[in-house]
Amino acid sequence: MTLVAALAGGVGAARLLRGMVHVVPSEKLVIIGNTGDDVEFYGLHISPDLDIVMYTLAGIVDENKGWGVSGDTFNCLEMLGKLGFETWFKLGDKDLAVHIARTKFLKEGIRLSEATKRLCQKLGVKAKLVPMTDDRVSTKIISGSLCLDFQEYFVKRKTEDTVTNVVFDGADRAKPAPMVVEALEEAERVIICPSNPILSISPILSISEIKAALKKTDAYVVAVSPIVGGKALKGPADRIMASMGFEVSAYGVAEFYRDFLDHMVIDEVDKHQKKRIEALGVKVTVANTIMKNLEDSVRLAKIVISTK
Amino acid sequence: MTLVAALAGGVGAARLLRGMVHVVPSEKLVIIGNTGDDVEFYGLHISPDLDIVMYTLAGIVDENKGWGVSGDTFNCLEMLGKLGFETWFKLGDKDLAVHIARTKFLKEGIRLSEATKRLCQKLGVKAKLVPMTDDRVSTKIISGSLCLDFQEYFVKRKTEDTVTNVVFDGADRAKPAPMVVEALEEAERVIICPSNPILSISPILSISEIKAALKKTDAYVVAVSPIVGGKALKGPADRIMASMGFEVSAYGVAEFYRDFLDHMVIDEVDKHQKKRIEALGVKVTVANTIMKNLEDSVRLAKIVISTK
Repeated sequence: MTLVAALAGGVGAARLLRGMVHVVPSEKLVIIGNTGDDVEFYGLHISPDLDIVMYTLAGIVDENKGWGVSGDTFNCLEMLGKLGFETWFKLGDKDLAVHIARTKFLKEGIRLSEATKRLCQKLGVKAKLVPMTDDRVSTKIISGSLCLDFQEYFVKRKTEDTVTNVVFDGADRAKPAPMVVEALEEAERVIICPSNPILSISPILSISEIKAALKKTDAYVVAVSPIVGGKALKGPADRIMASMGFEVSAYGVAEFYRDFLDHMVIDEVDKHQKKRIEALGVKVTVANTIMKNLEDSVRLAKIVISTK
Repeated sequence: MTLVAALAGGVGAARLLRGMVHVVPSEKLVIIGNTGDDVEFYGLHISPDLDIVMYTLAGIVDENKGWGVSGDTFNCLEMLGKLGFETWFKLGDKDLAVHIARTKFLKEGIRLSEATKRLCQKLGVKAKLVPMTDDRVSTKIISGSLCLDFQEYFVKRKTEDTVTNVVFDGADRAKPAPMVVEALEEAERVIICPSNPILSISPILSISEIKAALKKTDAYVVAVSPIVGGKALKGPADRIMASMGFEVSAYGVAEFYRDFLDHMVIDEVDKHQKKRIEALGVKVTVANTIMKNLEDSVRLAKIVISTK
């Protein structure tokens, strides 16, 4: 029985979720992860957002970076460089084991959701981490006449291109992975993690059955704003929202989710936006949303779970 | 133009060949490598004998072990173990890069010979290292009613089973890789490296066109005995020769190769066998065949190349 379903991107989501597992029984938490960023390098299938959440909940994430495995080495990558391959996507040796395993599973015909389940089990992650889909949905970044793969935009070109549009290639044919729609239907509460609305949450919403389930669910839908004081806590969300014509503010985020949002947790520095957001028909809780350590994460998770 | 063609297994062959490249212009040396030991782990295609030769000639081999990359780490393997995979085949992180690259090439439809060429080029190996075939030939070890994969016998079970037969699965359908037959036809000299006759050289000979080219060639065919003083310098060659009914001696090796052998280099401790081997119609040179360092390898290579 799902108590809480969470829509999750990468680092921001993982930081809230590492607190959430101390607040909600893990086995009743279903995390619906973004796979629009998934990428293939060297023939290996990499699911960066799923891995960030998995490593974080397994307690092995590199805390400084927020991604990758703590204390990892990069000897394989260095050698791949010598063999003539591009190495701008920083894959550590331990990290690679996960990609090798996932790729092997997929090659054997095992679906991504089942592969993710197996990896999580082995790493001791008790929450149910589910990819948004077992189908291929690829986030493409449009910048003028350029069409960039997500990781090319995000890592290789360091988010320097002005994003004029984002396309979720394959979304029209993609079905939600098993458990996704049921979790959204059953949950008492749906959490939209403080992830990039356009790059991390929109790919999930791009699958029509997920969007529909979210609109239909009786669950109380709570989002945590990733925009604090008009800036993204991490990553290019602020610049992308601006270049795509959205207001770069907690209000802008609430407006982005207004179709299904019941409640919004905004940072104290944004408390002046409370009334504007409430005018959208969305309740507001003002809190300290910065998560520097596990205590911060637990504190915020408690607030998120008790909003009403 | 090929001057020297060499039939090569793993460590013993690599030690002679690291000397040979100082004696013969590398670009005129064609090394025909055994791929009967090839194995797939974690969906990655591993060619242990090709890699031993490649790493040795690239100057990056782990000198102590004779295989693997010097100074390698094993973090990926450790993580694969945590993910529930078997880890008895010791793949280092740098080593893995080669298998990842090879697997990617093969998946793209590139043949093993071309993949090997690309890897060698990037690692600065100038000699032409060619797999015996681009097809799949798998050495199977028969021990009574057991049929073991080569690496299962060799690494996992530590050569503890009594070998009653060896089968080269797929050899009847396998064609020599490009350059193999031409090299044997063109070469002035063919070297049978001091490798296990049954496990390393026989897989190469199991491909009928290679065996035929070897019998037909005008090249002077010289073998270095891997059996010294009735014992294998490395590995289970002595036990296997015994259990399969061959005499475990330099003479036994000469007899094994007699169909095409012109000359045999045997160790000083075996000089009493000279006459018996000559009675097979095979000339004999007695020399110190132990290769502890590069100087030893160069010295032996010079002897091998000047026999007549």
